[in-house]
Amino acid sequence: MNEAVERTGVLYLEDLHPGQRFTSGLYHMDEDRIKAFATEFDPQPFHLDKSAAQASVFRGLAASAWHTAAVTMYLLVTSGLPLANGIIGLGGEIAWPKPTRPGDTLRVESEILEIRCSRSKPQQGIVIVRSTTLNQDAEPVYVFTAKILVFRRTS
Amino acid sequence: MNEAVERTGVLYLEDLHPGQRFTSGLYHMDEDRIKAFATEFDPQPFHLDKSAAQASVFRGLAASAWHTAAVTMYLLVTSGLPLANGIIGLGGEIAWPKPTRPGDTLRVESEILEIRCSRSKPQQGIVIVRSTTLNQDAEPVYVFTAKILVFRRTS
Repeated sequence: MNEAVERTGVLYLEDLHPGQRFTSGLYHMDEDRIKAFATEFDPQPFHLDKSAAQASVFRGLAASAWHTAAVTMYLLVTSGLPLANGIIGLGGEIAWPKPTRPGDTLRVESEILEIRCSRSKPQQGIVIVRSTTLNQDAEPVYVFTAKILVFRRTS
Repeated sequence: MNEAVERTGVLYLEDLHPGQRFTSGLYHMDEDRIKAFATEFDPQPFHLDKSAAQASVFRGLAASAWHTAAVTMYLLVTSGLPLANGIIGLGGEIAWPKPTRPGDTLRVESEILEIRCSRSKPQQGIVIVRSTTLNQDAEPVYVFTAKILVFRRTS
Protein backbone atom coordinates (compact mmCIF):
# COMPACT_ATOMS: atom_id res chain seq x y z
CA MET A 1 0.00 0.00 0.00
CA ASN A 2 1.14 3.51 -0.67
CA GLU A 3 1.55 5.79 2.27
CA ALA A 4 -1.56 7.88 2.83
CA VAL A 5 -0.66 11.49 3.37
CA GLU A 6 -3.21 14.23 3.85
CA ARG A 7 -2.76 17.24 1.63
CA THR A 8 -1.61 20.09 3.83
CA GLY A 9 -1.97 22.85 1.20
CA VAL A 10 -0.92 25.80 3.31
CA LEU A 11 1.64 27.73 1.32
CA TYR A 12 0.97 30.84 -0.75
CA LEU A 13 3.37 32.79 -2.94
CA GLU A 14 4.57 34.98 -0.06
CA ASP A 15 5.44 31.86 2.00
CA LEU A 16 7.95 30.56 -0.55
CA HIS A 17 11.63 31.37 -0.94
CA PRO A 18 14.51 30.00 -3.01
CA GLY A 19 16.27 27.14 -1.25
CA GLN A 20 13.09 25.92 0.47
CA ARG A 21 12.86 22.13 0.36
CA PHE A 22 10.06 19.58 0.58
CA THR A 23 9.96 15.80 0.75
CA SER A 24 6.98 13.68 -0.30
CA GLY A 25 5.61 10.44 1.05
CA LEU A 26 6.40 7.10 -0.58
CA TYR A 27 4.89 5.26 -3.57
CA HIS A 28 5.38 1.60 -4.40
CA MET A 29 5.64 0.70 -8.12
CA ASP A 30 3.65 -2.45 -8.69
CA GLU A 31 4.45 -4.64 -11.71
CA ASP A 32 0.81 -5.19 -12.67
CA ARG A 33 0.13 -1.44 -12.54
CA ILE A 34 3.27 -0.73 -14.58
CA LYS A 35 1.97 -3.07 -17.29
CA ALA A 36 -1.57 -1.66 -17.11
CA PHE A 37 -0.33 1.93 -17.47
CA ALA A 38 1.90 0.91 -20.39
CA THR A 39 -0.95 -0.98 -22.06
CA GLU A 40 -3.10 2.14 -21.94
CA PHE A 41 -0.53 4.83 -22.73
CA ASP A 42 2.84 3.44 -23.77
CA PRO A 43 2.42 -0.01 -25.32
CA GLN A 44 6.06 -0.78 -26.07
CA PRO A 45 7.55 -4.26 -25.49
CA PHE A 46 10.11 -3.12 -22.90
CA HIS A 47 7.26 -1.91 -20.64
CA LEU A 48 5.09 -5.00 -21.12
CA ASP A 49 7.17 -8.13 -21.51
CA LYS A 50 10.12 -9.28 -19.40
CA SER A 51 11.97 -11.12 -22.18
CA ALA A 52 11.61 -8.27 -24.64
CA ALA A 53 12.69 -5.82 -21.93
CA GLN A 54 15.74 -7.92 -21.09
CA ALA A 55 16.86 -7.76 -24.74
CA SER A 56 16.23 -4.00 -24.94
CA VAL A 57 18.36 -1.03 -23.95
CA PHE A 58 16.57 -1.14 -20.56
CA ARG A 59 17.97 -4.62 -19.69
CA GLY A 60 14.81 -5.52 -17.81
CA LEU A 61 11.21 -4.45 -17.37
CA ALA A 62 10.92 -0.67 -16.99
CA ALA A 63 7.93 1.52 -16.18
CA SER A 64 6.80 3.96 -18.84
CA ALA A 65 8.60 7.24 -18.25
CA TRP A 66 5.15 8.87 -18.17
CA HIS A 67 4.08 6.52 -15.39
CA THR A 68 7.03 7.77 -13.33
CA ALA A 69 6.02 11.34 -14.21
CA ALA A 70 2.39 10.73 -13.22
CA VAL A 71 3.35 9.07 -9.92
CA THR A 72 5.61 12.03 -9.20
CA MET A 73 2.62 14.34 -9.67
CA TYR A 74 0.62 12.19 -7.27
CA LEU A 75 3.35 12.48 -4.65
CA LEU A 76 3.62 16.24 -5.15
CA VAL A 77 -0.14 16.78 -4.95
CA THR A 78 -0.72 14.56 -1.90
CA SER A 79 2.33 15.42 0.18
CA GLY A 80 5.38 16.75 -1.64
CA LEU A 81 4.49 20.34 -2.44
CA PRO A 82 1.81 21.81 -0.17
CA LEU A 83 0.66 24.78 -2.25
CA ALA A 84 -2.62 26.29 -1.14
CA ASN A 85 -4.06 26.71 -4.63
CA GLY A 86 -2.88 23.35 -5.89
CA ILE A 87 -0.13 22.53 -8.32
CA ILE A 88 -0.76 24.25 -11.63
CA GLY A 89 2.17 23.51 -13.93
CA LEU A 90 2.76 25.57 -17.04
CA GLY A 91 5.63 23.46 -18.32
CA GLY A 92 9.29 22.86 -17.69
CA GLU A 93 12.17 20.51 -18.31
CA ILE A 94 12.12 16.79 -17.70
CA ALA A 95 14.73 14.04 -17.67
CA TRP A 96 14.74 10.36 -16.80
CA PRO A 97 18.30 9.48 -15.73
CA LYS A 98 17.43 5.85 -14.89
CA PRO A 99 14.46 3.54 -15.47
CA THR A 100 11.86 2.88 -12.77
CA ARG A 101 11.55 -0.87 -12.06
CA PRO A 102 8.77 -3.05 -10.67
CA GLY A 103 9.10 -3.09 -6.89
CA ASP A 104 10.76 0.31 -6.67
CA THR A 105 9.63 2.64 -3.90
CA LEU A 106 9.69 6.26 -5.03
CA ARG A 107 9.79 9.55 -3.18
CA VAL A 108 10.14 13.11 -4.43
CA GLU A 109 12.46 15.79 -3.09
CA SER A 110 11.71 19.32 -4.26
CA GLU A 111 13.55 22.59 -4.01
CA ILE A 112 12.33 26.09 -4.85
CA LEU A 113 14.90 27.52 -7.28
CA GLU A 114 13.41 30.88 -8.19
CA ILE A 115 10.35 33.06 -7.69
CA ARG A 116 9.20 35.37 -10.48
CA CYS A 117 6.52 37.78 -9.38
CA SER A 118 4.14 38.99 -12.06
CA ARG A 119 4.23 42.74 -12.73
CA SER A 120 0.92 42.81 -14.54
CA LYS A 121 -0.86 40.44 -12.11
CA PRO A 122 0.41 41.24 -8.59
CA GLN A 123 -1.67 38.45 -7.03
CA GLN A 124 0.31 35.72 -8.78
CA GLY A 125 3.77 34.59 -9.73
CA ILE A 126 5.71 31.80 -11.37
CA VAL A 127 7.74 29.58 -9.07
CA ILE A 128 10.52 27.43 -10.48
CA VAL A 129 10.69 24.15 -8.59
CA ARG A 130 13.08 21.28 -9.22
CA SER A 131 11.54 17.96 -8.17
CA THR A 132 13.78 14.91 -8.13
CA THR A 133 12.16 11.50 -7.90
CA LEU A 134 14.40 8.97 -6.15
CA ASN A 135 14.14 5.21 -5.82
CA GLN A 136 14.81 3.22 -2.62
CA ASP A 137 18.55 3.34 -3.37
CA ALA A 138 18.43 7.16 -3.56
CA GLU A 139 19.07 7.03 -7.30
CA PRO A 140 17.31 9.77 -9.30
CA VAL A 141 14.88 8.27 -11.81
CA TYR A 142 13.18 11.51 -12.87
CA VAL A 143 13.92 15.22 -12.60
CA PHE A 144 11.22 17.77 -13.35
CA THR A 145 12.13 21.44 -13.26
CA ALA A 146 8.69 23.00 -13.35
CA LYS A 147 7.19 26.42 -13.85
CA ILE A 148 4.29 26.53 -11.41
CA LEU A 149 1.61 29.20 -11.14
CA VAL A 150 1.26 30.27 -7.49
CA PHE A 151 -1.12 32.81 -5.94
CA ARG A 152 -0.86 35.19 -3.00
CA ARG A 153 -3.31 35.13 -0.14
CA THR A 154 -6.38 37.16 -0.93
CA SER A 155 -6.32 39.88 1.73
CA MET B 1 -13.61 4.75 -29.74
CA ASN B 2 -10.12 5.81 -30.56
CA GLU B 3 -8.81 5.23 -34.02
CA ALA B 4 -6.90 1.97 -34.22
CA VAL B 5 -3.60 2.45 -35.95
CA GLU B 6 -1.08 -0.31 -36.42
CA ARG B 7 2.43 0.54 -35.38
CA THR B 8 4.48 0.86 -38.55
CA GLY B 9 7.91 1.10 -36.86
CA VAL B 10 10.08 1.30 -39.95
CA LEU B 11 12.43 4.22 -39.44
CA TYR B 12 16.02 3.99 -38.25
CA LEU B 13 18.47 6.80 -37.52
CA GLU B 14 19.67 6.97 -41.12
CA ASP B 15 16.09 7.41 -42.37
CA LEU B 16 15.52 10.62 -40.40
CA HIS B 17 16.31 14.19 -41.36
CA PRO B 18 15.54 17.64 -39.93
CA GLY B 19 12.24 18.99 -41.22
CA GLN B 20 10.66 15.54 -41.52
CA ARG B 21 7.06 15.58 -40.25
CA PHE B 22 4.64 13.00 -38.91
CA THR B 23 0.97 13.10 -37.94
CA SER B 24 -0.67 10.68 -35.50
CA GLY B 25 -4.12 9.18 -35.39
CA LEU B 26 -6.85 10.62 -33.17
CA TYR B 27 -7.69 10.15 -29.48
CA HIS B 28 -10.96 11.08 -27.81
CA MET B 29 -10.73 12.46 -24.25
CA ASP B 30 -13.53 10.93 -22.25
CA GLU B 31 -14.75 12.69 -19.08
CA ASP B 32 -14.90 9.52 -16.99
CA ARG B 33 -11.36 8.59 -17.99
CA ILE B 34 -10.15 12.14 -17.25
CA LYS B 35 -11.57 11.82 -13.73
CA ALA B 36 -10.17 8.29 -13.26
CA PHE B 37 -6.68 9.36 -14.32
CA ALA B 38 -6.84 12.40 -12.01
CA THR B 39 -8.09 10.26 -9.12
CA GLU B 40 -5.09 7.98 -9.49
CA PHE B 41 -2.36 10.49 -10.30
CA ASP B 42 -3.46 14.11 -9.93
CA PRO B 43 -6.31 14.36 -7.40
CA GLN B 44 -6.91 18.11 -7.56
CA PRO B 45 -10.44 19.59 -7.54
CA PHE B 46 -10.17 21.20 -11.00
CA HIS B 47 -9.60 17.75 -12.55
CA LEU B 48 -12.37 16.01 -10.60
CA ASP B 49 -15.29 18.30 -9.96
CA LYS B 50 -17.09 20.58 -12.42
CA SER B 51 -18.07 23.28 -9.90
CA ALA B 52 -14.61 23.47 -8.36
CA ALA B 53 -13.11 23.57 -11.85
CA GLN B 54 -15.44 26.38 -12.89
CA ALA B 55 -14.24 28.48 -9.94
CA SER B 56 -10.56 27.72 -10.66
CA VAL B 57 -8.08 29.28 -13.05
CA PHE B 58 -9.12 26.58 -15.58
CA ARG B 59 -12.72 27.89 -15.78
CA GLY B 60 -14.09 24.40 -16.31
CA LEU B 61 -13.09 20.76 -15.97
CA ALA B 62 -9.59 20.13 -17.31
CA ALA B 63 -7.64 16.91 -17.79
CA SER B 64 -4.52 16.44 -15.74
CA ALA B 65 -1.59 17.78 -17.75
CA TRP B 66 0.02 14.36 -17.28
CA HIS B 67 -3.00 12.69 -18.83
CA THR B 68 -2.49 14.83 -21.93
CA ALA B 69 1.21 13.90 -21.86
CA ALA B 70 0.43 10.19 -21.52
CA VAL B 71 -2.14 10.26 -24.33
CA THR B 72 0.41 12.04 -26.51
CA MET B 73 2.83 9.17 -25.85
CA TYR B 74 0.11 6.69 -26.85
CA LEU B 75 -0.44 8.54 -30.12
CA LEU B 76 3.29 8.71 -30.83
CA VAL B 77 3.86 5.02 -30.06
CA THR B 78 0.87 3.73 -32.02
CA SER B 79 0.98 6.00 -35.06
CA GLY B 80 2.71 9.33 -34.67
CA LEU B 81 6.41 8.50 -34.73
CA PRO B 82 7.20 5.19 -36.44
CA LEU B 83 10.69 4.50 -35.06
CA ALA B 84 11.90 0.94 -35.54
CA ASN B 85 13.35 0.55 -32.05
CA GLY B 86 10.48 2.25 -30.29
CA ILE B 87 10.34 5.64 -28.65
CA ILE B 88 12.98 5.87 -25.94
CA GLY B 89 12.84 9.39 -24.49
CA LEU B 90 15.72 10.72 -22.42
CA GLY B 91 13.98 13.96 -21.50
CA GLY B 92 13.15 17.32 -22.97
CA GLU B 93 11.01 20.38 -22.57
CA ILE B 94 7.27 20.41 -22.04
CA ALA B 95 4.58 23.06 -22.04
CA TRP B 96 0.80 23.05 -21.78
CA PRO B 97 -0.45 26.21 -23.53
CA LYS B 98 -4.13 25.35 -23.01
CA PRO B 99 -6.09 22.82 -20.95
CA THR B 100 -7.45 19.61 -22.46
CA ARG B 101 -11.22 19.34 -21.94
CA PRO B 102 -13.66 16.42 -21.76
CA GLY B 103 -14.82 15.65 -25.30
CA ASP B 104 -11.66 16.96 -26.96
CA THR B 105 -10.22 14.95 -29.81
CA LEU B 106 -6.44 15.10 -29.83
CA ARG B 107 -3.83 14.46 -32.49
CA VAL B 108 -0.07 14.92 -32.50
CA GLU B 109 2.03 16.59 -35.17
CA SER B 110 5.76 16.00 -34.89
CA GLU B 111 8.78 17.47 -36.62
CA ILE B 112 12.39 16.34 -36.49
CA LEU B 113 14.42 19.39 -35.45
CA GLU B 114 17.93 18.03 -35.14
CA ILE B 115 19.94 14.83 -35.33
CA ARG B 116 22.98 14.37 -33.10
CA CYS B 117 25.04 11.34 -34.03
CA SER B 118 27.06 9.77 -31.24
CA ARG B 119 30.83 9.78 -31.75
CA SER B 120 31.53 7.14 -29.14
CA LYS B 121 28.58 4.90 -30.14
CA PRO B 122 28.29 5.06 -33.95
CA GLN B 123 25.22 2.79 -33.94
CA GLN B 124 23.06 5.36 -32.16
CA GLY B 125 22.16 9.02 -31.99
CA ILE B 126 19.94 11.52 -30.24
CA VAL B 127 17.08 12.93 -32.30
CA ILE B 128 15.37 16.14 -31.20
CA VAL B 129 11.67 15.95 -32.04
CA ARG B 130 9.05 18.60 -31.35
CA SER B 131 5.62 17.04 -30.90
CA THR B 132 2.63 19.36 -30.71
CA THR B 133 -0.66 17.95 -29.47
CA LEU B 134 -3.65 19.74 -30.98
CA ASN B 135 -7.32 19.64 -30.13
CA GLN B 136 -10.17 19.48 -32.66
CA ASP B 137 -9.93 23.27 -33.12
CA ALA B 138 -6.23 22.96 -34.02
CA GLU B 139 -5.27 24.67 -30.74
CA PRO B 140 -2.03 23.40 -29.19
CA VAL B 141 -2.66 21.88 -25.76
CA TYR B 142 0.79 20.35 -25.24
CA VAL B 143 4.22 20.76 -26.77
CA PHE B 144 6.96 18.24 -26.03
CA THR B 145 10.42 18.85 -27.44
CA ALA B 146 12.02 15.50 -26.79
CA LYS B 147 15.47 13.98 -26.88
CA ILE B 148 14.95 10.51 -28.28
CA LEU B 149 17.50 7.70 -28.51
CA VAL B 150 17.45 6.25 -32.03
CA PHE B 151 19.49 3.37 -33.48
CA ARG B 152 20.90 2.61 -36.92
CA ARG B 153 20.07 -0.52 -38.80
CA THR B 154 22.30 -3.37 -37.75
CA SER B 155 24.08 -4.29 -40.99
